[in-house]
Amino acid sequence: MAEKPEGRARGEEWWSTEIIEMRPGLIRLRGYPIEDLIGRVSFPAMIWLMLCGDLPSEQEAALLGAALGAAVDHGPQAPSIAIARMAATCGVGINSAMASAINVLGDVHGGAGEGAVAFYGEVAAAMDGSLPLEEAAAAQLDRFLAEGGAFVPGFGHRFHPIDPRAPRLLGLVRDAAAAGTVSGRFADIAEALERGIAARKGKRIPLNIDGATAVIYGELGFPPPLTRGLFVLSRSVGILAHAWEQGQRAERNKGPLPREWLWAYEGPSERRLGNAE
Amino acid sequence: MAEKPEGRARGEEWWSTEIIEMRPGLIRLRGYPIEDLIGRVSFPAMIWLMLCGDLPSEQEAALLGAALGAAVDHGPQAPSIAIARMAATCGVGINSAMASAINVLGDVHGGAGEGAVAFYGEVAAAMDGSLPLEEAAAAQLDRFLAEGGAFVPGFGHRFHPIDPRAPRLLGLVRDAAAAGTVSGRFADIAEALERGIAARKGKRIPLNIDGATAVIYGELGFPPPLTRGLFVLSRSVGILAHAWEQGQRAERNKGPLPREWLWAYEGPSERRLGNAE
Amino acid sequence: MAEKPEGRARGEEWWSTEIIEMRPGLIRLRGYPIEDLIGRVSFPAMIWLMLCGDLPSEQEAALLGAALGAAVDHGPQAPSIAIARMAATCGVGINSAMASAINVLGDVHGGAGEGAVAFYGEVAAAMDGSLPLEEAAAAQLDRFLAEGGAFVPGFGHRFHPIDPRAPRLLGLVRDAAAAGTVSGRFADIAEALERGIAARKGKRIPLNIDGATAVIYGELGFPPPLTRGLFVLSRSVGILAHAWEQGQRAERNKGPLPREWLWAYEGPSERRLGNAE
Amino acid sequence: MAEKPEGRARGEEWWSTEIIEMRPGLIRLRGYPIEDLIGRVSFPAMIWLMLCGDLPSEQEAALLGAALGAAVDHGPQAPSIAIARMAATCGVGINSAMASAINVLGDVHGGAGEGAVAFYGEVAAAMDGSLPLEEAAAAQLDRFLAEGGAFVPGFGHRFHPIDPRAPRLLGLVRDAAAAGTVSGRFADIAEALERGIAARKGKRIPLNIDGATAVIYGELGFPPPLTRGLFVLSRSVGILAHAWEQGQRAERNKGPLPREWLWAYEGPSERRLGNAE
Repeated sequence: MAEKPEGRARGEEWWSTEIIEMRPGLIRLRGYPIEDLIGRVSFPAMIWLMLCGDLPSEQEAALLGAALGAAVDHGPQAPSIAIARMAATCGVGINSAMASAINVLGDVHGGAGEGAVAFYGEVAAAMDGSLPLEEAAAAQLDRFLAEGGAFVPGFGHRFHPIDPRAPRLLGLVRDAAAAGTVSGRFADIAEALERGIAARKGKRIPLNIDGATAVIYGELGFPPPLTRGLFVLSRSVGILAHAWEQGQRAERNKGPLPREWLWAYEGPSERRLGNAE
Repeated sequence: MAEKPEGRARGEEWWSTEIIEMRPGLIRLRGYPIEDLIGRVSFPAMIWLMLCGDLPSEQEAALLGAALGAAVDHGPQAPSIAIARMAATCGVGINSAMASAINVLGDVHGGAGEGAVAFYGEVAAAMDGSLPLEEAAAAQLDRFLAEGGAFVPGFGHRFHPIDPRAPRLLGLVRDAAAAGTVSGRFADIAEALERGIAARKGKRIPLNIDGATAVIYGELGFPPPLTRGLFVLSRSVGILAHAWEQGQRAERNKGPLPREWLWAYEGPSERRLGNAE
Repeated sequence: MAEKPEGRARGEEWWSTEIIEMRPGLIRLRGYPIEDLIGRVSFPAMIWLMLCGDLPSEQEAALLGAALGAAVDHGPQAPSIAIARMAATCGVGINSAMASAINVLGDVHGGAGEGAVAFYGEVAAAMDGSLPLEEAAAAQLDRFLAEGGAFVPGFGHRFHPIDPRAPRLLGLVRDAAAAGTVSGRFADIAEALERGIAARKGKRIPLNIDGATAVIYGELGFPPPLTRGLFVLSRSVGILAHAWEQGQRAERNKGPLPREWLWAYEGPSERRLGNAE
Repeated sequence: MAEKPEGRARGEEWWSTEIIEMRPGLIRLRGYPIEDLIGRVSFPAMIWLMLCGDLPSEQEAALLGAALGAAVDHGPQAPSIAIARMAATCGVGINSAMASAINVLGDVHGGAGEGAVAFYGEVAAAMDGSLPLEEAAAAQLDRFLAEGGAFVPGFGHRFHPIDPRAPRLLGLVRDAAAAGTVSGRFADIAEALERGIAARKGKRIPLNIDGATAVIYGELGFPPPLTRGLFVLSRSVGILAHAWEQGQRAERNKGPLPREWLWAYEGPSERRLGNAE
């Protein structure tokens, strides 16, 4: 182990962090010696500490854990899961199969939850400006629709008439609000928005998984863009499970369809290079 | 929502899975309706269910959670963390910053734990063949060293004289063994190996974080290559925390060092294209 | 080889493409049998055919090749190159080392060229609306500055007072315009913008590599977002070269700085979990 | 621009390179001022210079370009291409769509060419040890088969009875050998291997694209693991073309199959959490 250089090496400032302190024989996360944390705080509490800088209560950690657990998988219809399975047959490590999949949890695939947290936050901000709940929700919906918005983030699902995860998560938030763990404000906002959407569209478009986890993340105070990262942590579990399952099979080099199915050319007919080329 | 096609579409077989069952309004993970799981099993238990197919006991889940929590971060010295921080300044989503980082948790950076589980497993197999612990450990060490192995996976650290995470994790395993949650056999193996290494090298080379989490993963029955995936889930937390922290700063396009430090050319001096080129 | 199924399998439509036609023993790219193309069109011409659907003239292909060649590398100060070098030490394949690096060529790191092509295109559109060159450039600059824009994409460099690649590329465009290969219009636009910026900022802020390749891509008719892809193809060469060079060295698990330099914690001092936790 | 620090900053050594020299206003690749190279050497020659350290002859560069051009695409049956197309619908930049795809060009998907170069190299080494061609090829084949090898790398194709790219590439090598550009030795080796395989298997298993590009890479002196990188550069073109084509369409969040096709669960039937859980 090399000695610490005299004074402060300039590279230190370049790589400074408030997350982890390291010295030989010492690791502190956000100030806590790691041996204090291990076995005493749950994994979701560790995630919280790393991201937010302080430890949550066990009730808060449990709510975070519920949101993380609820979104672990939605099957190989999701491009991320399909990619994980295909990657697992290509001769790369499981970390790389996971990376190719996580990489596509972008604005369209992984961004709806983030959008919902931000959307709720706008309503909450209007309420802070003393607008009542229903009016704040209505104003936000009207602005969204006036700006050409089609799908309110967090509501409706192409596959599920009712997303079975959403009511269950909302119930947990209600329980936590009753226990004083959270305020319940974001649950109120989500329900007001659901009513407002129904009034404007003439049919119920229920809360989906992204909207329901967004209620939890909003209640717990996570800034919207960070919740994309929480979704990545959650979906990584399904990505790993599918990469692993596929990797246990004997297939190699798995394409999206059986080989004999793909004849799908729609471009120009045969043409040849001219002699002058 | 389209109707299910008559009979079984051939694409089904191509994408079959035992992990998740999906129908409109229904999601079952490994057979369990997801609304049953949410809020009733911990996040580590959900990870276990997804990967192994059955629910663990809460004690098993807690041990898994301790291992996952212990390895979340080891600072920007680790290339994965440094990559996450640099990527966060390049104008990509946080999912992509995470993917670039997770992608490098390869054989060298992320594989030591997997190696340790496999190494312990060899000793366990020899014990199943009725060799006593110390002899089984000695035989495995001697074979490893005879084949030119230098660093026994799971032991020693370039930075920490004693890795503060290892004894704490081992203590948890001992407690769990006393409570009957696990057998304690992999803890025995790790300690026998540590003794054997000390005898052969003339100095103590203590268990490190990879060796300690490997004890837990071995006790819990995870196959070695899957534990690489567990490490990815764990380290993803630190990767996200660092990407987020860096992204909150105003820097853009962060290189590995301050710009004026990099003049490190060591190739040929100036040369010119000849006229005939 | 399985038989083609009767009728058209539905998966075909899902995966239809105009790029490549495949049948057993037959590969056609954009209609050309591949054996006709191999050895008869240059690599840049092949890139053009794949992306644009038709073959370029050899002069057009040469101009594309010059742009691709000019941007292959800008050293390990660039996060992409640093990431490639670090990844190469982590025990992943060279493809994965390249992927982690390419992945960060995002809006900030890889997007300036795309921005410049779009910026020039706005000026060109104004000229199509019959504004003279200088006025079109001035209007575009004034709008950009009025909207709070600070750095006109394609101009100025944090490191090079004059980017040595830019004048050379611009000279090639001028030669190609003289030969009738391109119109020279985007070169005119870039120069008019440089004059306009100098007039507004009171000092010359010269065309950089992104602005110069953008002139070529604009002259050749590439849509702006596709030019990000061209930059990826180009920089991939440097990424591969650096990953390879680093991989040839004996280092393992390369961090951003020598290990003993990193002590850069700036978070809270030590704190302990309370007994009640 | 900051001043160069006194003496040599230690970070320099950490990031030293023989590839690129950078100073304000100066960029040299392998010693050549970049403005000398731009427009005077072809893109394949630039690739060669970056990877190998010296400029090739134009004939050598053309042969490299032919190999790079031949392997740009093999359609969406290949997982890499399918991944690129799916990623392009997920709301990530085109660089990230490319990265997810390139990342899977691993040992199985992207490694056959590398394997073929190494395989030929073994034969060449035996010939250097003065074994005649046919005997050297036979010895290498027999050893491969004796060790349980099933598919000789570079020969046979699951889809094409004859890969139309291979004979054309081999013809180019023959022409180049006739012109003295290369020795022709690796073409001889490939043909001897094809004869040897036919003799051992009782049917012709023809050279495929990997085997044919491996002949070129072997003739040009590239070390086997670097040729994986060359394949990445080549296939990146198709990856970009497909990502771009898909991105131009209105689809979002493209899975591997139409949504209503995926009902492919094969795990346990419904089960419920017990009360005691």
